[in-house]
Amino acid sequence: MISLNRDEIEALIDHDLAAEAVAEAYRATSLGKVNLPPVGHIAFPDHAGDCHIKYGHVAGDPFFVIKIATGFPGNEALGQPNGNGLSVVMSAETGEVRALLHDEMVMTDIRTGIGGAIATKLLARKSSLKITVVGSGVQARRQIESHASLMSEDLIFKIWGRSVDKTAAAVKAVPETINVSQVTDLEDACRNADVIVTATGSTSPLIQSDWVQPGTHITAVGADALGKQELESEVVVSADALFADLASQSLDHGEFAIPAANHLIDTNRIVEIGDVLANPGCGKSSDDHVTVADLTGIAAQDIAIAGVVLNAFMATV
Amino acid sequence: MISLNRDEIEALIDHDLAAEAVAEAYRATSLGKVNLPPVGHIAFPDHAGDCHIKYGHVAGDPFFVIKIATGFPGNEALGQPNGNGLSVVMSAETGEVRALLHDEMVMTDIRTGIGGAIATKLLARKSSLKITVVGSGVQARRQIESHASLMSEDLIFKIWGRSVDKTAAAVKAVPETINVSQVTDLEDACRNADVIVTATGSTSPLIQSDWVQPGTHITAVGADALGKQELESEVVVSADALFADLASQSLDHGEFAIPAANHLIDTNRIVEIGDVLANPGCGKSSDDHVTVADLTGIAAQDIAIAGVVLNAFMATV
Repeated sequence: MISLNRDEIEALIDHDLAAEAVAEAYRATSLGKVNLPPVGHIAFPDHAGDCHIKYGHVAGDPFFVIKIATGFPGNEALGQPNGNGLSVVMSAETGEVRALLHDEMVMTDIRTGIGGAIATKLLARKSSLKITVVGSGVQARRQIESHASLMSEDLIFKIWGRSVDKTAAAVKAVPETINVSQVTDLEDACRNADVIVTATGSTSPLIQSDWVQPGTHITAVGADALGKQELESEVVVSADALFADLASQSLDHGEFAIPAANHLIDTNRIVEIGDVLANPGCGKSSDDHVTVADLTGIAAQDIAIAGVVLNAFMATV
Repeated sequence: MISLNRDEIEALIDHDLAAEAVAEAYRATSLGKVNLPPVGHIAFPDHAGDCHIKYGHVAGDPFFVIKIATGFPGNEALGQPNGNGLSVVMSAETGEVRALLHDEMVMTDIRTGIGGAIATKLLARKSSLKITVVGSGVQARRQIESHASLMSEDLIFKIWGRSVDKTAAAVKAVPETINVSQVTDLEDACRNADVIVTATGSTSPLIQSDWVQPGTHITAVGADALGKQELESEVVVSADALFADLASQSLDHGEFAIPAANHLIDTNRIVEIGDVLANPGCGKSSDDHVTVADLTGIAAQDIAIAGVVLNAFMATV
């Protein structure tokens, strides 16, 4: 049995191979090729923590993956990361445990960054140059790195976070080859952006509808549970086109949940990224259109990134 | 992070401590102290295999456990065990991974054996001496060992299995201090037993009602999924008292599921083992009564046995 820790896993992930695998996961999901049982969940109210168990199997794959992820917001005060977890890779042919990937969330962080960049590249105007990233955590940094890697090193990033200090630290953590600067005026940064990427855990909308100019694309990756919302409902309502990694999840607990619950959007309008990848004509139809992609994270991507790690490891032995 | 393999785990389990922990798990479950989300499940029809994810948290415990167990019946033809799996022990205070117990089912095997012996000891006539065990697999052997250990080394075991060769091998695997002999006449062995323990994966009833004499206690541990049935429905219907580790599971996918679905039993009659442990007066009320205990396996026992392993390991470091 293979057992890898966080550092070993991160060293094994080639960003381009991971991007191919995450794109394929989008496609497989939208084609219905992924067996995805309901996500397991257990809460620990005494410590405001919880644990999610995401698992699934892509038709034909020789393995399947069970991802266990915990979130304990009180850890930060103890100087520990809030998120923890591991993925268990098992044979879909014999049920044996093939690998324990004790990644402490790094696989999720990377696949989420790549998933956001794939959505932006697919849906933003081809001339997009100015990207405003909202958030100051690990995921804001991953989004910047993935966008630079998958789209262009010439992109100009602005980053805004609620905490000025944390945001400054995030800027420092980004490789120097990337053009990123911290801003304090979120409205201005949104009004002057070609693309807005939101990666916060906000429970009240940060982005107002009148800040969003025609032609803007928004990739929202923060809302992954009921009660989280990064975009004012009007942003979603007035957008010309809506996209999601998995429409059912976005409507259940993603950015589209609240506008849908208030009957403000036609849920049939939501197009899945995997369908756009298969048929790019489903994407942005005019450079003046505002487009919103909501990404809640799909188990197929967890399977994909685990596959990348395993293949890379097997090539070393 | 602690990481233990099957042999290390088996060496760390003290049978008496495990028996205490499993009994406490029965009690905690019946007292409603265990948070038990629905069991996760994913099937692999191409290989007739499946995977169950059982997880839960006992109120107040500093850790929780996620048990992943697979069953691929085709493995046997490849000379591999059908069952595989591991348990992940995580902090209920920070969400960190505390331990990976790659037990390949040995913890489940041991806790199931102990769980059966606790039920028999609690519910059988005190004078019980002759135990007929039905089945020839690992669990039949575990039941014999646990009954001898928890009840008396003087017990006289008969074992019957569908395969004469496999049954002979099971007899050989039992320690020589235990009085066990193989039989080929199941009816005779049941008619002459004080206790019948069934531990098969049978999908059609093996034990007929007219073989069961007054005063007999039956512990049935085999039926753990819909479609499995070891006892003719009439055995259950005509029993004087019915017991279960978790009544809702026994009615859903255990030995009581088929008689209940056919409205042959009053489901309110089922008493949980944990309630009998807390109040022995709920047990067998006459030495002439036939009693049936159906054990489908509860996550609290998986948590309990993981705790025993962890505590023993911590005492060594």
